[in-house]
Amino acid sequence: MSRTVFYTATTLDGYLADERDSLDWLFVQDSDSAGPHGYDEFIAGVGAVVMGRTTYEWVREHLHASGEGWPYDMPTWVVSHADLPGIPGADLRFAQGEVAPIHAALTNAAGGKDIWVVGGGDLAAQFAEAGLLDQLMVSIAPVTLGAGRPLFPRRFALELQDVARNRAFVCATYGVLGALAAGGAEPAS
Amino acid sequence: MSRTVFYTATTLDGYLADERDSLDWLFVQDSDSAGPHGYDEFIAGVGAVVMGRTTYEWVREHLHASGEGWPYDMPTWVVSHADLPGIPGADLRFAQGEVAPIHAALTNAAGGKDIWVVGGGDLAAQFAEAGLLDQLMVSIAPVTLGAGRPLFPRRFALELQDVARNRAFVCATYGVLGALAAGGAEPAS
Repeated sequence: MSRTVFYTATTLDGYLADERDSLDWLFVQDSDSAGPHGYDEFIAGVGAVVMGRTTYEWVREHLHASGEGWPYDMPTWVVSHADLPGIPGADLRFAQGEVAPIHAALTNAAGGKDIWVVGGGDLAAQFAEAGLLDQLMVSIAPVTLGAGRPLFPRRFALELQDVARNRAFVCATYGVLGALAAGGAEPAS
Repeated sequence: MSRTVFYTATTLDGYLADERDSLDWLFVQDSDSAGPHGYDEFIAGVGAVVMGRTTYEWVREHLHASGEGWPYDMPTWVVSHADLPGIPGADLRFAQGEVAPIHAALTNAAGGKDIWVVGGGDLAAQFAEAGLLDQLMVSIAPVTLGAGRPLFPRRFALELQDVARNRAFVCATYGVLGALAAGGAEPAS
């Protein structure tokens, strides 16, 4: 059965990218692609991908600048109200509105493999609020930024499932328990 | 020789407390006081303590509400421009201005033991900017808050020294490399 996983790198202070959407601080970090939270093993288990507009536009610009091709073989949903240009070679589905029907389509496309929520944090939190996010797999880079794109801009209770180190990164896997009431300590749901 | 250590709990998204300075989300978490980053072992190595105004006022109100006594045997510096009331039984030194002379006084008082920067994040970052912070020891609670008191509101490059798990917490120890230039990936210093 598909799991829906927010698999991402973050800074120690909970930012996915800096205020200019730069990931320069990330790409200089040392990691072992065959180690914990390694990309190759993760992506092999993924059957469908979903990302928000900012993430998609970042990928599109990055590919344009680098000349690289679209990296995902599996169908990819882009959640955006805007009319966005496509990318050659990419199996893209543009969607908007509630996440539940998008999740149903992702599940159908994934064929039993996992669903990867690439980002951003707000999209991942929308899935979590709808009870449709199973895990956070975060690779924490040894950096603080003080400002930027937030990892998960909601009050949520998680459950630590696993901790490991991959060179410069702390790799932590969490289950999603539920929203945390304002001022409360226990999940509201 | 004294190390200066910012030893703190934080949420996964990098908050020390929520917007109302509540730590309710923290106190419900399971941990082993004799495990990694355990308080008893840490405090036994500490010879002097320093905290900012918000932290001090939080402690004062917490002690007032609970009826507990001041918890630290060692001298404690409170960095604040405001004129704050003392606490019975506490060896307090109120200070303001540059952190360098405060750090010199802390080092002298610590007598070779470590200096604990209790918080907040801005005070810890001021020590780091002055080249006077050696380590961050963070215990990451399985919670996101989305807003609150920031862990370390600066761009800084760290070095991961150790990772462990203590029940609900990811325990990570970092050395402080230096400030990260805006948009840059390497320490500016």
